[in-house]
Amino acid sequence: MTAKRDARREDLKGRLITAAQAHIQSSGLGGLRARDITAEAGCALGALYTAFADLDELILHVNSITLARLGAALREEATSAVEPRAKLRALARAYLTFARDNRMLWAALFEHRMAPGVAVPEWHLAEHAVLIQHLVEPLAALRPAAETPDLLARARTLFSAVHGIVAISLEDRFIGLAPTDLESELLNFVDVLVTGLETERK
Amino acid sequence: MTAKRDARREDLKGRLITAAQAHIQSSGLGGLRARDITAEAGCALGALYTAFADLDELILHVNSITLARLGAALREEATSAVEPRAKLRALARAYLTFARDNRMLWAALFEHRMAPGVAVPEWHLAEHAVLIQHLVEPLAALRPAAETPDLLARARTLFSAVHGIVAISLEDRFIGLAPTDLESELLNFVDVLVTGLETERK
Repeated sequence: MTAKRDARREDLKGRLITAAQAHIQSSGLGGLRARDITAEAGCALGALYTAFADLDELILHVNSITLARLGAALREEATSAVEPRAKLRALARAYLTFARDNRMLWAALFEHRMAPGVAVPEWHLAEHAVLIQHLVEPLAALRPAAETPDLLARARTLFSAVHGIVAISLEDRFIGLAPTDLESELLNFVDVLVTGLETERK
Repeated sequence: MTAKRDARREDLKGRLITAAQAHIQSSGLGGLRARDITAEAGCALGALYTAFADLDELILHVNSITLARLGAALREEATSAVEPRAKLRALARAYLTFARDNRMLWAALFEHRMAPGVAVPEWHLAEHAVLIQHLVEPLAALRPAAETPDLLARARTLFSAVHGIVAISLEDRFIGLAPTDLESELLNFVDVLVTGLETERK
């Protein structure tokens, strides 16, 4: 009996995650309401709260899938390129491509906030490592003398810079780049940075 | 009579802007409600709509003041430093300092969105130029052969990168830098980029 109930609960969770994912991808995190998701998942409003603690927990599960998909896309680039410059260029391009192709799901990673006073659970925090983990190895190759904490800080800085270039432009901010310039500017930016790192190493 | 009515309207506008500014600076754009602002400004709810078209127009006026203050802070740094490297470092540090000291007002510049289908008025769009205008001159010194459209694209890219580093960390995003590392990482980032530009010029 318990096994059957567990299976039913897992099925419900899956349907709710799929519905929330579709909703975020089409309309963004802003317009997300519990009743729309349960309607799409074909269950009662209250059922959401038997499967998840609240709407935030459901959103974290959607973000978790997005991070895993983004992580897979980045891992593929990190393993296909060999030289640090080629690797960092490939990672930046893959990040831009993923953000472009999954606009709203990608934006939800950075827009979602927990209710005041509620911490993001550890299991989800740890998943954000995919955003920087592939940057550490090429940065280490460019800065052989740097220690791990420094390399991690450099990786966070580089990720934030690339994210800023992509986000300011994709969000159509006044100060962003034209869509046609974005990829070439981003790759040029990575090139200048790598040249700077190579020069400093000498 | 008209002069007196105009003066009264200007006074009302000023009080509403001051009240909205104080509200955004203490609680951010998220919790901004017309009735809180009019209560603080000591006028009826309807008075807001005699002074401004809507709440969005009032927010644009607050953002306009924030941009002017940020512009003044950046201008001061741009004129005090001479060498491109020193100038870009000073501008990055001034941007971080302004963002830190005016957290919510600064965030409102990037969080505010007009209602769907409503364009940001031209007078306000033009004010965003302060974010990149001081970057063009030092970039031109580092890239003497570059033409104006390229320099403007480089300035937008550099602004977006610096903004990304500052924003991801100040917003306490999982992937951001520790507050103690932020300034040194940001300045190190600018240094590497300038070294890259200098090397490419040779």
